[in-house]
Amino acid sequence: MNQSVPAWERAPAFAFDAAHCRLSVLDQTRLPFEERWLQPASVADCVRVIREMNVRGAPLIGLVAAAGMAFATREDASDAGLERAAAALLASRPTAVNLGWALARMRATLGPAPPGARPALAAREVLELQRSEYACCERIGAHGAALLGALATSERVQRRGRLNVLTHCNAGWLATGAWGTALAPVYRAAADGIAVHVWVDETRPRNQGARLTAWELAQAGIEHTVVVDNCAGHLMQHGEVDVCLVGSDRTSARGDVCNKIGTYQKALAAADNGVPFYVALPCSTIDWSIEDGLREIAIEERDASEVLLLEGAGTDGVLRTLRHAPAGSRARNVAFDVTPARLVGALVCEHGVFAPSAAEMARLRAVAGATPERV
Amino acid sequence: MNQSVPAWERAPAFAFDAAHCRLSVLDQTRLPFEERWLQPASVADCVRVIREMNVRGAPLIGLVAAAGMAFATREDASDAGLERAAAALLASRPTAVNLGWALARMRATLGPAPPGARPALAAREVLELQRSEYACCERIGAHGAALLGALATSERVQRRGRLNVLTHCNAGWLATGAWGTALAPVYRAAADGIAVHVWVDETRPRNQGARLTAWELAQAGIEHTVVVDNCAGHLMQHGEVDVCLVGSDRTSARGDVCNKIGTYQKALAAADNGVPFYVALPCSTIDWSIEDGLREIAIEERDASEVLLLEGAGTDGVLRTLRHAPAGSRARNVAFDVTPARLVGALVCEHGVFAPSAAEMARLRAVAGATPERV
Repeated sequence: MNQSVPAWERAPAFAFDAAHCRLSVLDQTRLPFEERWLQPASVADCVRVIREMNVRGAPLIGLVAAAGMAFATREDASDAGLERAAAALLASRPTAVNLGWALARMRATLGPAPPGARPALAAREVLELQRSEYACCERIGAHGAALLGALATSERVQRRGRLNVLTHCNAGWLATGAWGTALAPVYRAAADGIAVHVWVDETRPRNQGARLTAWELAQAGIEHTVVVDNCAGHLMQHGEVDVCLVGSDRTSARGDVCNKIGTYQKALAAADNGVPFYVALPCSTIDWSIEDGLREIAIEERDASEVLLLEGAGTDGVLRTLRHAPAGSRARNVAFDVTPARLVGALVCEHGVFAPSAAEMARLRAVAGATPERV
Repeated sequence: MNQSVPAWERAPAFAFDAAHCRLSVLDQTRLPFEERWLQPASVADCVRVIREMNVRGAPLIGLVAAAGMAFATREDASDAGLERAAAALLASRPTAVNLGWALARMRATLGPAPPGARPALAAREVLELQRSEYACCERIGAHGAALLGALATSERVQRRGRLNVLTHCNAGWLATGAWGTALAPVYRAAADGIAVHVWVDETRPRNQGARLTAWELAQAGIEHTVVVDNCAGHLMQHGEVDVCLVGSDRTSARGDVCNKIGTYQKALAAADNGVPFYVALPCSTIDWSIEDGLREIAIEERDASEVLLLEGAGTDGVLRTLRHAPAGSRARNVAFDVTPARLVGALVCEHGVFAPSAAEMARLRAVAGATPERV
């Protein structure tokens, strides 16, 4: 990166003050037009910022849910109180598996302690979770950057003078607090001196690509170009994409990847054009209880208005909403899709790079099973 | 359709008064919010409405270009005058082949006549072209409806109670003047009593699906649901699409299809899920001089602002523009892509249904070669 202080430290998406149990999150619904931080101060506040998508991204949702459990210990530290809080936080978004995982980890830590000790313990555990999530992303970045470094030696990249990465939605530091998952290898590679350029899928209907990924790449000084979701196939046909890097909201035991709607179509285009399709994820997003992602993962459907209405800023910088479909037309708004493991070239996680084959997934499960993620 | 008068007669996209050489076109940039007709009255006007996309859709562009040649005969009926007009009209949009074809047809008709006879001849030829284009679309509708009728007998469709068609962009009567190409089979099938529902791809960046296709289907009383371009793969994975029907702006001799950006990604998803992928087109869109569509068809790139800005209507119905990407972010705006013939199940044209195999394309060429399209 161009700056010595990482972009995520200059504009933190998540900041938790354990001493005073204070939380500050960047309001992602206002980006890229306004940098505004919110201070959720209760379980209900945390549920609200997750549900309203002021915070989004599976790992960041997990962190905010953990902070919610810290608030819970100050509202009602009894077992019943924590259970109620965890249930409310779990229901705030249906798809992301590490929301449930972060809550389980907090409950496992708090459960054995007497209620009076829980507030301090919870605050420390949020920081510990944050530290381990950030370290996890940094490791993903290192493993992924090695892949990018290898791709950057190709004749095509050498001739073009830059490595072209295509990403979908936002799986950067806005989704995780630091580094990101899919974008961590990009930040690491750029820091290592590789010339990297990112094709940013707009990612309708919520436009996380055009709004969030473009913003965070700009903050970090990474060259990028926004394209509509329809464009990726064409770019791949014409040799303009060297690698696809996306995140995962939930990954099945065999490597099926549930991620933002449209990911599957990118994976198909990558397969058809021999473009490597890599999924970067913390192992906390793997749901080892699920084999067939297509049949077993419940997919969130959101309000039709996200499709029928367009949101952006006027010349005054104020966010507004316009309608583009005829009044009376219906819409369907499916938030995620599942990319079958056969289309995934590699899973890049904190433990390294794994093909989604039975043998490699078994090896990953053995490694991941030995880490705190399995608590 | 629910109404006895077709929607395209109630709100004509193209109306040419040959007696007075007067043209009226529906301004598609204002739909679905305002129904406004423009009266281009010169070659320059016709160039402008094509370039500014007040009219769009390959066959409709051809009709407007033909009308432009009629104006040319009144501005300067000399050979040089017509040549200048044809060159200006040809340059108004780069991709659609039947713009060039319509112009060639007008010049072939006008060329042998003395300049004094050209205005009347040109006006008649515009009407003749319109008549043949509409008849062509009606035949596409009949051939395509037979395919839909066969699909409608499947157990899945019977159980669901409706046939689900997915379309991309707008290849309906707004693109052709009457019936449409991809939507002609839908209108024919609906008129024949088949319960049909259309998944309407939004079609970023210009949103012709959400704005035009949704509007024209509503006008015709056809049930439909708008989805973002990212959604089609998911719908196909879950058995919710029985057939994809799209149009073509230019088709190569071997059956590669150049159509709105994103068509290729739909074709990949259809192939991956065993969903029939049909392309409906008048043979005038086939460029027999081109074999390899991917390498040989020049693809139009449009202004980045179409990607970076969003257009829609406020609650007052007035069209406005909002920005959703960060100020300073760049975008690339590729208008079309090429779907290779191997992904196309069938070409549905005025002469029937043809697989894009060498044998069938040769048969189609022989049939199409005997028609006025080959002038």
